[in-house]
Amino acid sequence: MKSEIIAVGSEMLTPYRQDTNSLYLTEKLNEIGVTVAFKTIVGDRHKDLVHAIRIALGRIDMLILMGGLGPTEDDLTREAVAEALSLTLRRDASQVAALHARAAAWRIAMPQNNLKQADVLEGATLLPNPNGSAPGQWLDTAFNGYRKLVMLIPGPPHECKPLFDTECLPRLRAVVPPRAIAVRTLKAAMIPESQADKLLAPVYTTYSDVETTLLAHAGDLQITLACSKPSQEAAQERVDSLAERIEETLEDWLYSSQGDSLEQIVLYYLGLRQATLAVAESCTGGMVAERITSVPGASRSFLGGVVVYSDHLKTALAGVSAELIAQHGAVSTEVAKAMAHGIRLRTGATIGLGVTGIAGPTGATESKPVGLVHIAVSDAQGTDAMERTFRGDRQRIREWASQQALDFVRRRLM
Amino acid sequence: MKSEIIAVGSEMLTPYRQDTNSLYLTEKLNEIGVTVAFKTIVGDRHKDLVHAIRIALGRIDMLILMGGLGPTEDDLTREAVAEALSLTLRRDASQVAALHARAAAWRIAMPQNNLKQADVLEGATLLPNPNGSAPGQWLDTAFNGYRKLVMLIPGPPHECKPLFDTECLPRLRAVVPPRAIAVRTLKAAMIPESQADKLLAPVYTTYSDVETTLLAHAGDLQITLACSKPSQEAAQERVDSLAERIEETLEDWLYSSQGDSLEQIVLYYLGLRQATLAVAESCTGGMVAERITSVPGASRSFLGGVVVYSDHLKTALAGVSAELIAQHGAVSTEVAKAMAHGIRLRTGATIGLGVTGIAGPTGATESKPVGLVHIAVSDAQGTDAMERTFRGDRQRIREWASQQALDFVRRRLM
Repeated sequence: MKSEIIAVGSEMLTPYRQDTNSLYLTEKLNEIGVTVAFKTIVGDRHKDLVHAIRIALGRIDMLILMGGLGPTEDDLTREAVAEALSLTLRRDASQVAALHARAAAWRIAMPQNNLKQADVLEGATLLPNPNGSAPGQWLDTAFNGYRKLVMLIPGPPHECKPLFDTECLPRLRAVVPPRAIAVRTLKAAMIPESQADKLLAPVYTTYSDVETTLLAHAGDLQITLACSKPSQEAAQERVDSLAERIEETLEDWLYSSQGDSLEQIVLYYLGLRQATLAVAESCTGGMVAERITSVPGASRSFLGGVVVYSDHLKTALAGVSAELIAQHGAVSTEVAKAMAHGIRLRTGATIGLGVTGIAGPTGATESKPVGLVHIAVSDAQGTDAMERTFRGDRQRIREWASQQALDFVRRRLM
Repeated sequence: MKSEIIAVGSEMLTPYRQDTNSLYLTEKLNEIGVTVAFKTIVGDRHKDLVHAIRIALGRIDMLILMGGLGPTEDDLTREAVAEALSLTLRRDASQVAALHARAAAWRIAMPQNNLKQADVLEGATLLPNPNGSAPGQWLDTAFNGYRKLVMLIPGPPHECKPLFDTECLPRLRAVVPPRAIAVRTLKAAMIPESQADKLLAPVYTTYSDVETTLLAHAGDLQITLACSKPSQEAAQERVDSLAERIEETLEDWLYSSQGDSLEQIVLYYLGLRQATLAVAESCTGGMVAERITSVPGASRSFLGGVVVYSDHLKTALAGVSAELIAQHGAVSTEVAKAMAHGIRLRTGATIGLGVTGIAGPTGATESKPVGLVHIAVSDAQGTDAMERTFRGDRQRIREWASQQALDFVRRRLM
């Protein structure tokens, strides 16, 4: 079954606010085999809302409206659904009593407009909302001759989520044909996006029953596979079969077939090899260390490191000789190697990582452009370095450089 | 003028990804007087995309399509716009040449499917994209007899934002009737959200012609003021008047009345005092250094620092005595002070910062809960420390701790 989520509220059409409930609802819907085909964000305008509702009912089986159920003049979801579906609204007496009781319990005066929260769509079931004053509504109806499920749920996350779980999901499970969905995420590092697609498209296009999504960001490629079947085993079998083909295809570009982050994988291999890591960063400014330490338990294999922004600190903290810097420049293979070697010796780590480069926007010279990065890894076997030139702004170059540095360590550990 | 933003990509209909570009585009559109009436998120399915485009063209004047311009089979925006508007696609020879040149420059083979990025809609102007391979497109066209502006822009944020600023905004300014809008952003650090609202609500509610938005995240409060008037002077006068009242109200919680980041302000004060900073981080794992070095030109005042995750490194790199750690524990006022003092001496910085804490989820003891953080600042006048306990998950605690650490340095410099 296909669904659409409409988030109602003018604040979500400003630069400052965003619908986030829909991520939660999507996860829950996917788990019972319902896909989200569209999400629409619409402001508190009656005409726009009626239009969005009619459009949605014309293209999906199930519509979830979030927000616009409160007591203010801007809360128009009930009225808009009524108009879109040509239904009447009736004021529910027991709901009116409940609103009065709630106001009395909170010792607040109840403005007359509060009572609109007791308005119920013709044929709808009220869904109790223990965390707020506006109940939800469940409507099993028809539009242009087709059966449509419509849910009205409150917008505030602490009302929306429990109400959806408690009231909507059980009703949906009774209606939606039981489907099992298997999802799996694979990750690869530093493979160019077009190359990944060239390699992968011939593979995943033969699995038309598995929805494959490729997502790339700064040298990180995420491949999500989702498959829906009558049985969980059948869905899992298809996803696992495609995952295996992708693993073979991507070879050692692939670093995880279970959705782990590159940081987690580096820490996993460090643990496996009983190795420890220390880093000396210049252009990444702490980003490599920050990424690694974002993983709980990183301290078991990650000792720490230095951020050596000035040449003086490259010498004082990472043991790079001032002569070497003078001879080759701070951004050079030689200095990257000396940083990796130096931090390894100073910290007693089994592996040392050195990153030096020009993140920009200034600092480039004729022979050394913005984006030039030297990365070195040092261990008991010796010290290796690589040179890369990344494009983009300062943030982007730092993201690429930290990704490449982590991948360099991963490959050293494999 | 009313606009709609369509974000294209199946990944944004999963529980894992969300469109964020639209917040940036909304800000820029609002600045020139264009409102966003709808946002639609649609997957990489040709039929759904054509449907969403036709719906949008029927209800707004201006359509911005983000994403789906890449080289893969899933990138269908060009084809869908062509179908929705009954336009032809033509392969642009100079664009084909540019794609070949780009591949050659990067020394990568160019797969055949890459060439679809050179397909241009009939009547469209190509918008150069210096940060990616797919150009944008600008189309001034008609739908059902009404003039419609359609923009196709790439999805990756580092491509989308500069392309929109450089190519779309100037063209839009030439089309949209001029309106005067003044916007100003004030920022405050570490003020509790409820206290901020209690202090500010009586002030900003008296300015009903200024739209005030408060947004809080991990100790950072952003207050945005926007006002639209017939003249720029009148709008600016109202925004500045309210800004002045807010400045008086928030006193030294406020760190910027021009929208600068806390990192920028710390670097500004360091420059003003001709001071230099070095940091020794434990629980934040490099996040403080990473935030500071995200600012271009940080190297003028920021020397660098150490990430001392292990006790041994606290001694080896930050000069904290092993006895002190044994006596008070690694997470203590004494160790934070020794880290700040030690890094200052080792680097020759005028100010040293030390951060040590328990980011969780493990590592808590009976007397030291997850979220406990000690922060110290050391300079020639001496060393001061503060103790805080932050709530939330590992990421959140690290964000709060880095924010508090930067604010501690700011207050020391004021």
